[in-house]
Amino acid sequence: MKPGQFTLSAKDEATFARRGQLITAHGPVETPVFMAVGTQATVKGIWPSQLEDAGASIVLGNTYHLALRPGADIVEKMGGLHKFSGWSGPMLTDSGGFQVFSLKTLRKITEEGVKFRSHIDGSALELSPESSMAIQNQLGADIIMAFDECPELPCDDKTMSNSLERTGRWLVRCREAHKKEEQLLFGIVQGGLNLELRARSLELTEEVDLPGVAIGGLSVGESREERLSVLKGMAASLPKDKPHYLMGVGTPLDIVEAVAEGIDMFDCVLPTREGRHGVAYTSHGKVRMRNHIHREDPAPLDANCSCPTCKNYSRAYLRHLFVASEALGSMALSLHNLYYYMKLMRDIRTAISEGTFVNLLNSIRNLYLNK
Amino acid sequence: MKPGQFTLSAKDEATFARRGQLITAHGPVETPVFMAVGTQATVKGIWPSQLEDAGASIVLGNTYHLALRPGADIVEKMGGLHKFSGWSGPMLTDSGGFQVFSLKTLRKITEEGVKFRSHIDGSALELSPESSMAIQNQLGADIIMAFDECPELPCDDKTMSNSLERTGRWLVRCREAHKKEEQLLFGIVQGGLNLELRARSLELTEEVDLPGVAIGGLSVGESREERLSVLKGMAASLPKDKPHYLMGVGTPLDIVEAVAEGIDMFDCVLPTREGRHGVAYTSHGKVRMRNHIHREDPAPLDANCSCPTCKNYSRAYLRHLFVASEALGSMALSLHNLYYYMKLMRDIRTAISEGTFVNLLNSIRNLYLNK
Repeated sequence: MKPGQFTLSAKDEATFARRGQLITAHGPVETPVFMAVGTQATVKGIWPSQLEDAGASIVLGNTYHLALRPGADIVEKMGGLHKFSGWSGPMLTDSGGFQVFSLKTLRKITEEGVKFRSHIDGSALELSPESSMAIQNQLGADIIMAFDECPELPCDDKTMSNSLERTGRWLVRCREAHKKEEQLLFGIVQGGLNLELRARSLELTEEVDLPGVAIGGLSVGESREERLSVLKGMAASLPKDKPHYLMGVGTPLDIVEAVAEGIDMFDCVLPTREGRHGVAYTSHGKVRMRNHIHREDPAPLDANCSCPTCKNYSRAYLRHLFVASEALGSMALSLHNLYYYMKLMRDIRTAISEGTFVNLLNSIRNLYLNK
Repeated sequence: MKPGQFTLSAKDEATFARRGQLITAHGPVETPVFMAVGTQATVKGIWPSQLEDAGASIVLGNTYHLALRPGADIVEKMGGLHKFSGWSGPMLTDSGGFQVFSLKTLRKITEEGVKFRSHIDGSALELSPESSMAIQNQLGADIIMAFDECPELPCDDKTMSNSLERTGRWLVRCREAHKKEEQLLFGIVQGGLNLELRARSLELTEEVDLPGVAIGGLSVGESREERLSVLKGMAASLPKDKPHYLMGVGTPLDIVEAVAEGIDMFDCVLPTREGRHGVAYTSHGKVRMRNHIHREDPAPLDANCSCPTCKNYSRAYLRHLFVASEALGSMALSLHNLYYYMKLMRDIRTAISEGTFVNLLNSIRNLYLNK
């Protein structure tokens, strides 16, 4: 099977949810999928073998961070991002655009690209469609992302419209600059909360006809209702034969609701970030591990979870680790949260196949909306 | 076999080095042994399953830290230190004495015991032979240590002599207070650098006739030569039928040189502390991981090591993790260093059995003294 091949195996009757498989150069990815975030070529506090045990199939790296440190040249010399990071399964890199546009005062945008200053040492750098492709070609991930413009919100329609037209022109330049066919290039739809602008951006993206389409510019501070209205408005017009990637989303509730609108791929720092901060996702909702209530609790974090944390430790021990500032606390909760997310995605895929997706959607809504 | 049984299986001809096995309530311990330090009921940054894979057989916990946080009552309620920490093999706890005496301005010493203030919240607390035994009985380690007085160095002979006599009286009180026969109580020999005082302290310790004898008051700032002269001076008079534990020591060189003087047991924070700080022990000597020289080095940290770090990662990647302040760097180097220490101890045991211990001693001396 050829990288880029995307096959749907089941479709929910009542929603846009679908189950599929995307072939990449480093193996297949079952969708809907959650991608663990390994910003600096490591999923924070987690060994690659643990990721595999958790059921992770694809890991994300951040081009901006890796280009600054250790540098794309070094990653390439070390055999590429897979070998460098010790993860032999599929990987995805973003374009660096989102991070560069977030620098605000440190950057200058032109039609050519973005000039910016490193947040690490202040050195002057540039990122453009061409350089982002060159860097991502060097990093060597299985899926690479187009370099798009990410306007700061709130943004008036005129500015947003100009911006997404530029993103369209940049997408053509990305396709021209992209040199490695086995790396799948995905375009990114922008347009903020305006459905007409989203439709125009999708049109521009589909003109280039790449193996996947991403929705960018969400999970940037909008409300759940605003995000859902964009996804609902776009669901019917997304290309059915390509994977749909919602960038940077989200909570378990965000994910299951987006699956209902036809989204196939997700990434988010939440499982590891919340884990580091002592917050766990469980089959009974969120748990704050530092809470005094856990002080003498011999129960596992989640009796329904098969992760090493839940199999080996009491809540009392996990609380102790956080109160005593021990690294294992962050490690154990990050790992647990990744298991939770991976199980959620397996449950979603099974439910779509078995025609019970709406039940799952409702149970996740009940779990997180009523608390 | 009964906890406390200690059997010697080989003895080096040219030195006091010996190989043996100590039976504990949670299994046998092959000696000479290095005990990984899990101060707060966790070996920093390491999963228990990784300790097991590294070949660790016995783990140390610190009574002072555990009594303050989470508290011995809670550890006991949670089923004891083994169940609490997820380590099902042998464990040892110290008495809390060393930490309490290190508090200096926060403590007051009498014949009864030590009054001190918690370094965490300043609350007033006491530790005595009786309370140390009670706490260690609650924690439930396989080997527990007598509550001894640890005089600050430099210390005149008169003060040291008074102190070790008190340590002798406290040892009698420890034996009286100790309530759980399956936990092996070890006495501790003090006496600083004075061999006559060491001999007197050993005499007092052996009057109580416990299943193991420890040497305390070293690794507190004395030179290598000073420490070796104490060990050499004591080697012939240590009880041959009991394990000899040198507390808080040390570097690989310290360990192999102490084995030559008949020491069977060691503990030290070095492998994990050095690992967290980016320093690795390798078959070619110490390596500072942040060094620029590793920037583009595709070689493993140590080609002779079978640990996950050396099997999966390049030096370039490990350097990147430290430069980028990623937790996996500390985790990977701590784990590697523990593998290094465990392999060193296996090599020592094999060399004693095979009559090649002096060769090993010389090769470790060459490795660390000539650099």
